[in-house]
Amino acid sequence: MTAPYPRLALDKALAQADANLGQSLERFYDLLRIKSISTEPAYRDDCRRAAQWLSDELIALGFDASVRPTPGQPMVLGHDRSAGGAHVLFYGHYDVQPVDPLHEWATDPFEPTLMPAANGETHIVARGASDDKGQLLTFVEACRAWKEANGNLPLSVSILLEGEEEAGSKSLGPFLDETASELKADVVLVCDTDMWDDVTPAVTFMMRGLCGLEVEISAASRDLHSGVYGGAARNPLQVLTTILASLRDDEGRILLDGFYDGVEELSPDVIAQWDRLAFDGDAFLNKVGLSTPAGESGRGVLEQIWARPTFEINGITGGYAGEGFKTVIPAKASAKVSFRLVGQQDPKAVCAAFKAHVEARLPADCSATVTIHSASSATHVRTGTPHLAKTLRALSEEWETDAALSGNGGSIPVINEFRDRLGMDALLVGFARFDNRVHSPNEKYDMSSFTKGIRSWLRILDKLADGHSGA
Amino acid sequence: MTAPYPRLALDKALAQADANLGQSLERFYDLLRIKSISTEPAYRDDCRRAAQWLSDELIALGFDASVRPTPGQPMVLGHDRSAGGAHVLFYGHYDVQPVDPLHEWATDPFEPTLMPAANGETHIVARGASDDKGQLLTFVEACRAWKEANGNLPLSVSILLEGEEEAGSKSLGPFLDETASELKADVVLVCDTDMWDDVTPAVTFMMRGLCGLEVEISAASRDLHSGVYGGAARNPLQVLTTILASLRDDEGRILLDGFYDGVEELSPDVIAQWDRLAFDGDAFLNKVGLSTPAGESGRGVLEQIWARPTFEINGITGGYAGEGFKTVIPAKASAKVSFRLVGQQDPKAVCAAFKAHVEARLPADCSATVTIHSASSATHVRTGTPHLAKTLRALSEEWETDAALSGNGGSIPVINEFRDRLGMDALLVGFARFDNRVHSPNEKYDMSSFTKGIRSWLRILDKLADGHSGA
Repeated sequence: MTAPYPRLALDKALAQADANLGQSLERFYDLLRIKSISTEPAYRDDCRRAAQWLSDELIALGFDASVRPTPGQPMVLGHDRSAGGAHVLFYGHYDVQPVDPLHEWATDPFEPTLMPAANGETHIVARGASDDKGQLLTFVEACRAWKEANGNLPLSVSILLEGEEEAGSKSLGPFLDETASELKADVVLVCDTDMWDDVTPAVTFMMRGLCGLEVEISAASRDLHSGVYGGAARNPLQVLTTILASLRDDEGRILLDGFYDGVEELSPDVIAQWDRLAFDGDAFLNKVGLSTPAGESGRGVLEQIWARPTFEINGITGGYAGEGFKTVIPAKASAKVSFRLVGQQDPKAVCAAFKAHVEARLPADCSATVTIHSASSATHVRTGTPHLAKTLRALSEEWETDAALSGNGGSIPVINEFRDRLGMDALLVGFARFDNRVHSPNEKYDMSSFTKGIRSWLRILDKLADGHSGA
Repeated sequence: MTAPYPRLALDKALAQADANLGQSLERFYDLLRIKSISTEPAYRDDCRRAAQWLSDELIALGFDASVRPTPGQPMVLGHDRSAGGAHVLFYGHYDVQPVDPLHEWATDPFEPTLMPAANGETHIVARGASDDKGQLLTFVEACRAWKEANGNLPLSVSILLEGEEEAGSKSLGPFLDETASELKADVVLVCDTDMWDDVTPAVTFMMRGLCGLEVEISAASRDLHSGVYGGAARNPLQVLTTILASLRDDEGRILLDGFYDGVEELSPDVIAQWDRLAFDGDAFLNKVGLSTPAGESGRGVLEQIWARPTFEINGITGGYAGEGFKTVIPAKASAKVSFRLVGQQDPKAVCAAFKAHVEARLPADCSATVTIHSASSATHVRTGTPHLAKTLRALSEEWETDAALSGNGGSIPVINEFRDRLGMDALLVGFARFDNRVHSPNEKYDMSSFTKGIRSWLRILDKLADGHSGA
């Protein structure tokens, strides 16, 4: 349909984004094929390749971009400040989670596969399709469409793409400090969160923090035969399970000294706001085969996943794991555990309390090592800003429904880094869905998340440019 | 040194065994190179090859031998009844334990390697070197030496070699029933146990039983991201650790309903006998880097490993086990656990109590499957028999010290099968040592276990033949 009056820059950009879809998907698939698993040293070269690929794309788009080495995985940083005026910094991450258990994938995790879904959607299935390659590309492809349609972006844009988000973002803080003058913008846009539901976009304003730890218990100097030593030899798997079981009571309360310091009860305001969201906790659980909230007794599902701290065991390794049976008493056993933090909980204090809890419960002949993989506090984004109001309006226009202001149970610690090191507010806008199997086998991104995500960013850029984008 | 009088058949056989050593070792190495891991289906052909290799050896020795198929791994059965008179049935097993963790092996587990030890001994390092290929070959090589030296064995010998001992011996019972008339002998000789210490041989007269079980806990229909679901979703690793931790109290007592039914306190006789053994519990633990008995409070090391029942966790699998960290809530988690049984404890009742214990503690949204890998009761061998007296005497002569009558914390369930199905007593004579790393990486057999083991069997055969073996 041709507009009866000169088309606005936004309309042109939206049409260009739609016209680009085939090629945008090709680029998406190319990026998905790169095995950029940041936590596994074997994939170090793949991470570098992903960074180079993104840098090349940004350069082709007219950005002044480069791969910036760090002690860990490299950053990609690019700028297009030709428009002047308002300035946004976009943040995303190109690294992905490991793929195991590999046998549970229906397709090769690094060969993107289109799959029709029962609801008429098309799923793009691959590791990183949702977290975060598809999400970050919605922004890059929006920039492309705008530039192809209008020559220039409507505002200054910097893009920072990290390669260690799944590995604790160890290099990010120092990098932000070193490049502070380059990065300083009006606001940080982050695309690593979920929609409210399949049809309702959301801006996320609160997220839990995360302490990710690993504990290894050692006892005998070698694996022992339980027939010979069983009864007299200390079994580290038994010590480990006893310690882990001691961290949570029957009511789901976490039994770590001082753990609830800084945890606040929901205010009546927040309760009222959340009630308006009409979140269906039963449906949320039913989708993944569950029916009963497993967290602290007497608290609703939404409160449990957004506003309450947790303790989870994310993996245990020890003893014989093959087929059949082996009567071994292993020399050591280890667990990966995590705490989600809310309010003012101090991640350093939680890590220290965990270490003390373990050490206080070690029987004779046992030693423990505790490794901290990540330690970040909960995040709250300011909600009264004009950037937020514009973003909510842009999202509501694209999705033709009121955008939600949403909590999130996960953790995006970089938000705190941008606030603390650069004094910048963040806007968390994401198009992922709850059922994207992020961090699981068969991760997917919906085609509409990708296409409407690109279009949403065009509308957001237009609004944030504050009228400078008119034809 | 030449004897001044006509050499006895035994002396000739002993000299022949010594002369055979080089070739005996070559045969031992050939057998060790066959990867006969019975618990892993991938090694099925290797198990068949090991059986065929053994059958061919027995045939070459003049035995009427063959490989006998079963629904599981095949049996090898051979007879040399040309001597008439006394008749012994030897039992051993050619299957071995899995080798993982492979990276902890200093050498290829299936390429036997000679290693000098600090005490002047030479170790033969390979999976199965001790359990049970080295041990079973001591008997086969003894038969060879006797026949080569004297033409005929001093008594009738049948040899039964199993391929499923490490996998629960599922085919053994039916096979014993089917071949009862072929197998019936005066006594069963079994070579799968330890020496008392490095210089003292032993006949084992009591062994604990074993329930080997696997429990898998399932919750959500797929792995979940702990950021999205953590707090509200049930974590099967948490359920599993809580259940496993609930099975043992702070005093090391096992908290399973009815578990101690049939467990008897040591009689004053047994206590007095064990005191005479002068077992050094501290040294036993120190050898493997431990110092404190970990079993039930108030009981000595020997009692804990021989006469008390145990609960052990032999392996846990669930969640993310790779490098780095993954904030996953796994859909399922599993553990391999075992109970060692003593006295009159009923293995079926223990397995049922474990299943009930798990099921009674499952929270909402969880299911559990419990698989029984093995269930055998404790074993007591009659101690007043002439066979035992002769065997103790033969061992004492070879090792030039009084042989011990020893308990054993492990389990050789086949002993019960021979008693219950064929009405035969067993004599458990073994030349393994406590530090052989059986079921662990770097399993070894001492050269002297092999050489003096062969010589010990020659002396035992001579005594059991009851004078028929004179020159």
